[in-house]
Amino acid sequence: MTQTTTPALVAESPGAAFVQRTIERRALRPDDVAIDIKYAGICHSDIHQVREEWGQAIFPMVPGHEIAGVVSAIGDAVTDVKVGDRVGVGCMVDSCGECDECRAGFEQNCARGAVMTYNGRGYDGEPTYGGYSQHVVVQQKFVCPIPEGIELDVAAPLLCAGITTYSPLRRWGVGPGSKVAVVGLGGLGHMGVVLATAMGAEVTVISRSDAKKDDSLALGAVEHLASSDPANLKARRGHFDVVLNTVSADLDIEDYLKLVGPRGVVANVGLPTEKYAVRPGLLIGGGKVLTGSNIGGIPETKEMLAFCAEHGIGAKVEVITADEVTAAYDKVVAGDVRYRYVIDVSTIDAGATEG
Amino acid sequence: MTQTTTPALVAESPGAAFVQRTIERRALRPDDVAIDIKYAGICHSDIHQVREEWGQAIFPMVPGHEIAGVVSAIGDAVTDVKVGDRVGVGCMVDSCGECDECRAGFEQNCARGAVMTYNGRGYDGEPTYGGYSQHVVVQQKFVCPIPEGIELDVAAPLLCAGITTYSPLRRWGVGPGSKVAVVGLGGLGHMGVVLATAMGAEVTVISRSDAKKDDSLALGAVEHLASSDPANLKARRGHFDVVLNTVSADLDIEDYLKLVGPRGVVANVGLPTEKYAVRPGLLIGGGKVLTGSNIGGIPETKEMLAFCAEHGIGAKVEVITADEVTAAYDKVVAGDVRYRYVIDVSTIDAGATEG
Repeated sequence: MTQTTTPALVAESPGAAFVQRTIERRALRPDDVAIDIKYAGICHSDIHQVREEWGQAIFPMVPGHEIAGVVSAIGDAVTDVKVGDRVGVGCMVDSCGECDECRAGFEQNCARGAVMTYNGRGYDGEPTYGGYSQHVVVQQKFVCPIPEGIELDVAAPLLCAGITTYSPLRRWGVGPGSKVAVVGLGGLGHMGVVLATAMGAEVTVISRSDAKKDDSLALGAVEHLASSDPANLKARRGHFDVVLNTVSADLDIEDYLKLVGPRGVVANVGLPTEKYAVRPGLLIGGGKVLTGSNIGGIPETKEMLAFCAEHGIGAKVEVITADEVTAAYDKVVAGDVRYRYVIDVSTIDAGATEG
Repeated sequence: MTQTTTPALVAESPGAAFVQRTIERRALRPDDVAIDIKYAGICHSDIHQVREEWGQAIFPMVPGHEIAGVVSAIGDAVTDVKVGDRVGVGCMVDSCGECDECRAGFEQNCARGAVMTYNGRGYDGEPTYGGYSQHVVVQQKFVCPIPEGIELDVAAPLLCAGITTYSPLRRWGVGPGSKVAVVGLGGLGHMGVVLATAMGAEVTVISRSDAKKDDSLALGAVEHLASSDPANLKARRGHFDVVLNTVSADLDIEDYLKLVGPRGVVANVGLPTEKYAVRPGLLIGGGKVLTGSNIGGIPETKEMLAFCAEHGIGAKVEVITADEVTAAYDKVVAGDVRYRYVIDVSTIDAGATEG
């Protein structure tokens, strides 16, 4: 198969509104899978990167690392999937495959540096373009079959928001009887609530206000606490085994370390701008753990998808058209989405000019 | 048995030199063990407390929570030990025994608050006095038999320095093939080196200078790095599985988080005065862990003693007399001890006035 063109949502420069035009996808290599994309989730990190809030980025940019679609062609050496299979692609599209971390299934920590799905460069030096498009070509190892029972629109966000929350919950032993607090009820947080609940945990949502209280309970939480009243947090000191902090705002992390009991864990998946400031005694007394987590490897992503299928879990999404993406970004920043915007990429019109 | 008097080293007020005089020990309760103390280790925390550097303390004070001796009498209900047994007592002498942590063997995290061996108050309200004395009465649960093969002088420091380093090494899975860095080669650090080496780890000592290099290698380390040259730390970035930080000085903790690879752990057992400042991305990338550890529970203390007996491990000690204790404190602060001062308590003379 030769190089192909595909309609995409393109940010031509930092912070620019999206334009709808075609981009090129590489010709299929022997171990490549070509995918007709159906849906692409909007992750808050897309916004940070388009707006160059995380440092210099590569433009033009096509964001999107929550990709769900159907295999349209495969290279000669592909054995994992076949044409017609429903598949997903997350934050990575390649890694060295040979370092200790790759061999252990932690491709996100690849010693050579994993190739990110967009705003990255392949090992061939070419920039990568993400899922806000109708077609993508990905090395087979990074293509994850989506099990029966999960629709593609609600599957897309699992590839980033799902694995990002699943991985630390599993690592820190969340299971029946665990007491888990999920801080922030956005795209990541709502997956954390649903996944931890399915794992058997008793989940509390901690949000700035009570505005999302009904949603918390509907998602499976047993309790919703507004952090705006310090007394709410004080009343739960030492109560939790794991606090999963999904917000990128600069919280006083000590407030959250106080919420866990002995050997308790505060796992951060949001990326605030300021340093954490932690009194040493707060970690030493009770042997508490302050840690973070960054997506997850491919084996664990597949495990997560199987878990979601088994428990009937998908993301809670609002499907939007290509024309709505630029406006949706502002809503995500304002927290005005329940809980993930997913782009129906069939609405991208390469003849249009403004998305 | 009625109340007894025993010679002790007493600090009458904050920072005072020790005087040698008698103190009272309680009459034996049914579950009490009376111990003729032979040796008491000098822990840096003794100095902090005598000098009231950790907040208001109880005076007069008899420090000492690294106690080794021989059982001299037992209460009617004591079944764990008998007269003549060689035993040790560490940092705790009582806990509620009923909370989740006590039931799980983590008495140091007792919900009611464990009773510390000195500078504490028993549940009866009476102040506790520690091991710088010739006799002590302790609830049987907190009396740990010292296995054959460990002499009492080198056993004493195991009760604090030993368990404090053993516990985090075990918790974080140190074993054959692990790469462990021990920061600081003092009383805690030297135990960390010996224990981690016995667990099968490849141990690197990180010290301010090369002054203790020969000692590091003699204790079993494969490498000694002077942190005074930043290039030494830079060359070991991502190298370790576990960094055991035993120093109480205010290090830049980020330098040490950089030393561990993915899922690596920086476990702190020293208590610096400033807060740790940590860039969130340093924890999130690779899922690194910043944690602390505080002594260990009684079951694990007994496990540690058995491990030490099996591997022929004791602390490296300098045995001193009661008269030398006040001067020894200054040497400990100056780092001039290899590696633990242990008081031969038979030298306490209750007729003397200055220790």
